[in-house]
Amino acid sequence: MRISELSRASGVPVATIKYYLREGLLHEGQLTSATQAQYDEGHVARLRLVRALIGVGGLSVAATREVLDQLDHPADSTHDLLGAAHRSLGPAVDEDVDTSAAESLLDRLGWQVRSADRQAVRQLAAALTALEAADFPLSEDEVVSYAQAMRAIAEREVADVPLESTEAAVRYMVLGTVLVEPLLLALRRLAQVDASARRYGTR
Amino acid sequence: MRISELSRASGVPVATIKYYLREGLLHEGQLTSATQAQYDEGHVARLRLVRALIGVGGLSVAATREVLDQLDHPADSTHDLLGAAHRSLGPAVDEDVDTSAAESLLDRLGWQVRSADRQAVRQLAAALTALEAADFPLSEDEVVSYAQAMRAIAEREVADVPLESTEAAVRYMVLGTVLVEPLLLALRRLAQVDASARRYGTR
Repeated sequence: MRISELSRASGVPVATIKYYLREGLLHEGQLTSATQAQYDEGHVARLRLVRALIGVGGLSVAATREVLDQLDHPADSTHDLLGAAHRSLGPAVDEDVDTSAAESLLDRLGWQVRSADRQAVRQLAAALTALEAADFPLSEDEVVSYAQAMRAIAEREVADVPLESTEAAVRYMVLGTVLVEPLLLALRRLAQVDASARRYGTR
Repeated sequence: MRISELSRASGVPVATIKYYLREGLLHEGQLTSATQAQYDEGHVARLRLVRALIGVGGLSVAATREVLDQLDHPADSTHDLLGAAHRSLGPAVDEDVDTSAAESLLDRLGWQVRSADRQAVRQLAAALTALEAADFPLSEDEVVSYAQAMRAIAEREVADVPLESTEAAVRYMVLGTVLVEPLLLALRRLAQVDASARRYGTR
């Protein structure tokens, strides 16, 4: 199909498609003349994925390129994939954040975290630091209770990783991180609204 | 204290303090001469809060101003506070997103969501749409299981809202939304790493 048809099939404007082509988020079509190229269903699928990552995932163009690169060139082992997925996904945190409170929490939880996953440890450290800086009243027991809830979710997610191909596993892990996060946050907010309505009543 | 002392006490550079003053994120000090003002512990506390919201919360200056405005001028009822907190907090979603799948999920869950909380419903709708657009394999039962996990978290959070003053309640709800979200996401990632290490082994 031509670029105008690709636009109709994907719902993405021609100008945006050209931008994604320039940025390397979408592979070039098959040139049929000096000024025209043909696109296929693979382009439609990739465009929908890019829109999902940038739109709801809230990723930058650079982060989207990294995620797509992981999908196209997967790491060697299933467990390494996860580290790679996390490293390229936000939020970026200063390397020099103090991780001692995060480390002692992980010790208490008994979680195994390798050096390759320092990015997530730093994110935890930054989150704990911000709560403390804002004087938010959250006890260590409450943090552990959040951790246990997330642990139950993660257990199920990791058990569901499709193992029939590395590509399917990467896709599941990367998209599961990027696209499920907004789902969880929206559900938490709505659950708060519901719990608040039940407890304090609506007017 | 003078602005240089405020900078030392808060760890925020003088140039940044001046920027926050111009943007209305920090209230002016007490003028002691045409070019000098005195600041107090209230300024130190507010600066730490602003850094937490912008730094880890990832809020824009405009969103931070809205959150601070809610802290300073709370809504009338505890339940209304929550709607106000959610409305000013990201991610912004198109008004015309199709919410029918989100509505039917909320029906199935039996959650009460008022029209004032449309923003969170649209966020849920956008998250579901992105998962579908990316062909991510997530069954309705799996979404419900995420919802139940978030429900358990929200029940406890809402039960913990401090009711001794409206200000304390707003503070708890706004900061609980902005600052606990990064904590939950970091914990989920680390829980995945741990679950993956246990299941697939480390190398």
